[in-house]
Amino acid sequence: MNFTIQNVLIATDDAYTTTDVKVVEGKISAIASNLDVVGTAVNGENKLLLPGFVNAHTHSSEMWQRGIMSVLPLELWLAELYDFAPLDTEKVYLSALGTAVETLLSGGTSVVDHLVLIPGQELETIATAVRAYREIGIRAFIAPLIQDESLTAGIPSGETERNHEPYFRSTADTLAIIEEAVRQFHRPEEGVNILVAPTGIQLCSDALFTGCIELSDRYNLCRHSHLLETKAQEKLAQEKYGCSAVEHLKRLGYLGDRTSLAHCVWLNDIDIEILAATQSTVVHNPLSNLRLGSGIAPILKYRQAGVNVTFGCDGASSNDSQDLLEAIKIGSILHNTTDRDYQHWITPRQSVEMAALGGAKALNMVDKIGSLTVGKQADLVLYDLTSLSLLPRTDPIGLLVLGRPTNAVDSAWVNGKQIVVAGKVNSINVDELRQKLFQRSQWDTQRKSQTVAEIEAHYRTVMGL
Amino acid sequence: MNFTIQNVLIATDDAYTTTDVKVVEGKISAIASNLDVVGTAVNGENKLLLPGFVNAHTHSSEMWQRGIMSVLPLELWLAELYDFAPLDTEKVYLSALGTAVETLLSGGTSVVDHLVLIPGQELETIATAVRAYREIGIRAFIAPLIQDESLTAGIPSGETERNHEPYFRSTADTLAIIEEAVRQFHRPEEGVNILVAPTGIQLCSDALFTGCIELSDRYNLCRHSHLLETKAQEKLAQEKYGCSAVEHLKRLGYLGDRTSLAHCVWLNDIDIEILAATQSTVVHNPLSNLRLGSGIAPILKYRQAGVNVTFGCDGASSNDSQDLLEAIKIGSILHNTTDRDYQHWITPRQSVEMAALGGAKALNMVDKIGSLTVGKQADLVLYDLTSLSLLPRTDPIGLLVLGRPTNAVDSAWVNGKQIVVAGKVNSINVDELRQKLFQRSQWDTQRKSQTVAEIEAHYRTVMGL
Repeated sequence: MNFTIQNVLIATDDAYTTTDVKVVEGKISAIASNLDVVGTAVNGENKLLLPGFVNAHTHSSEMWQRGIMSVLPLELWLAELYDFAPLDTEKVYLSALGTAVETLLSGGTSVVDHLVLIPGQELETIATAVRAYREIGIRAFIAPLIQDESLTAGIPSGETERNHEPYFRSTADTLAIIEEAVRQFHRPEEGVNILVAPTGIQLCSDALFTGCIELSDRYNLCRHSHLLETKAQEKLAQEKYGCSAVEHLKRLGYLGDRTSLAHCVWLNDIDIEILAATQSTVVHNPLSNLRLGSGIAPILKYRQAGVNVTFGCDGASSNDSQDLLEAIKIGSILHNTTDRDYQHWITPRQSVEMAALGGAKALNMVDKIGSLTVGKQADLVLYDLTSLSLLPRTDPIGLLVLGRPTNAVDSAWVNGKQIVVAGKVNSINVDELRQKLFQRSQWDTQRKSQTVAEIEAHYRTVMGL
Repeated sequence: MNFTIQNVLIATDDAYTTTDVKVVEGKISAIASNLDVVGTAVNGENKLLLPGFVNAHTHSSEMWQRGIMSVLPLELWLAELYDFAPLDTEKVYLSALGTAVETLLSGGTSVVDHLVLIPGQELETIATAVRAYREIGIRAFIAPLIQDESLTAGIPSGETERNHEPYFRSTADTLAIIEEAVRQFHRPEEGVNILVAPTGIQLCSDALFTGCIELSDRYNLCRHSHLLETKAQEKLAQEKYGCSAVEHLKRLGYLGDRTSLAHCVWLNDIDIEILAATQSTVVHNPLSNLRLGSGIAPILKYRQAGVNVTFGCDGASSNDSQDLLEAIKIGSILHNTTDRDYQHWITPRQSVEMAALGGAKALNMVDKIGSLTVGKQADLVLYDLTSLSLLPRTDPIGLLVLGRPTNAVDSAWVNGKQIVVAGKVNSINVDELRQKLFQRSQWDTQRKSQTVAEIEAHYRTVMGL
């Protein structure tokens, strides 16, 4: 497990230097020129070494529906998604592997999987994802997606009186499942973490949030949630609480420095101050926000207010990929259209810091990962700067962030263990994965969602369409 | 040159069918099941066949500065770009090849190269691009970039009195160069076309536009130009003409059904009607518009008004890639944030039509390319649906447009000639190209643009920053 990368390019404050990086027992033990080789010697020539990025929000099993979801806004899209959700753990296993492969080959060494649970097989679903991530070796943050209200409750009522089916599982039972998952699977030192992760204010009671806070405090767990992804959710929060969702979550005590919040598209200036004051993290999912027409999150405002921001791919049904470099690129340049003063725009080096250190902060891991620092865990990615997509030679980080790197990841290590070698994931058999994904699916264009048909008229009315 | 693709998936009106496609003497001669094989048999199993797309706006030599350009808006970015523009034809040759390779491997079979000319070596620059594109075999539309005003004239004056250096070459000399280029290189039947292409109203006199119109009429040439890419250009048009740039171009007679206009970000409703009435084409370059903070072009409005829209990568210094599928994806989903009614959003099948047939229309080639139609030229792309990035199997076109396809192009033909085989461009030596791009460049982060330093203060004042 010990190795020394020789003559590799790393970023300095505003330039690059060529150096050696030594890793001993999973940790970076030295960064300097001409180090004695310990363990395997890795040729770093014409390669760039960066800390691994964090894919800070995804839903792995959505991979089964990527490419086929209708062009719809979140609330209707969710209805279609759940009408066709995969219901067997073998599929969960394969899509967790697929998500990890695409994340690793685009610079990610950690993944936050806001994992959709198969009803009645909740612990089995979590166990399956844990198994997949352990096998492939990516650092895993499994955030079982929970709610205690039924789907239609997530759409504002507007002027109408509406009744919703009760959710099929009680709040207490849901919390018990999470606590059991923590007991069985939460092993941070082994790279497997369980998070508390109510889906969001739109489908969760205060009791569920409060229960999650208790679990988080008792077991030292990070907290995750969707937050104000759509205009409809902003409206719903006002209906439900008479205040913004952020103010409500603050009162409940859900926000804090180990809380990460996906999307954050519809926050006002006071909300932004609250996120800054509570040191909460925004996980920006630009591709999903565009695909679902959710809006453009005010990321430059977050940065100016001192809010930590990092990137996620979101589930592959709303992206429809798990290429983290694509999310970083679009999540960086998208905001240049929102502020005419280019001095506020995100630079490629800032993007890299957001994706690596920003992700570490989101997960309360800032002392352990997120930068090339002696003493930190060796979650590292080595990019091949002779890839056509990174040529001609100019600024390597600029090429990586603003270009469209293909086949650019040469090697990746998690906790010092190498899991990408010469551009291939070597901890699992990727060809076999491809074959299974192929065999268990079929080309399809004709499917129709029954639930969308049922709720679309109400959605259009209440949203003024 | 004759071949028959067997058992390949093609799109029907709203589904897919498996069929054979026969190509004889560069043209599609039959599309039906169980055709007799003529020429080479190509196995189409688990592959999708689409018409080749058009990369309808780029500047190939910008490849030399991709990744390194500062985070700046167009007017300042241009100053930096020209301070470091490559000035030898060998570089022009290599970047034309690089642009073609990336376009081909992302579904494009035609490229519109708004080619930056080396001062004093204008015809040599054009000859070099022609040579590169002939060698690689992509269908080339070379649009030599011309202007007759100097760079500072492209920034609005605002309240200040400003004098600009005269441009180094006369309008007449510029037009003579284009006419000579047409005589030497315009060979549509051989896949090499010359376009008239003043850079735009911001740096061109009426005389230059009028001269281009005359050449276009005399030699049956398509017309190309940038149009209203930035807020500053909208301002400048008012200063220069007292009306919108579109109205001015209409009066000059530049618009029409073989005119394509890159960007079109800052058009008003009357401008849009003019584009529709003149049957002009908008070339949407979403990544460049984001990268330079130019804005979001009102593409859904164009479509509703009946304006033809297609996609371009724009030059690699403002993108910073030539991946056409990326431009198509972002250029499709970006607009979901601009119109709350999802019934107006672009579907993946519409995106494909915009990229293929829309591109053909832009280039007055609608009878010859842009769809799988018997009698049309065989500009075809075959996608490998067993690529991990296109799995699991769902809707192939959805996966292609909304996903992040990597290593997905299996084969490509231009005019019936195969130039991508088993995922590799085989008409040139791509490894040698990589090596030359590597050798002729160096990693760099410290460069500073003198011109930006000179003009930035004025830019900030006049733009109210």
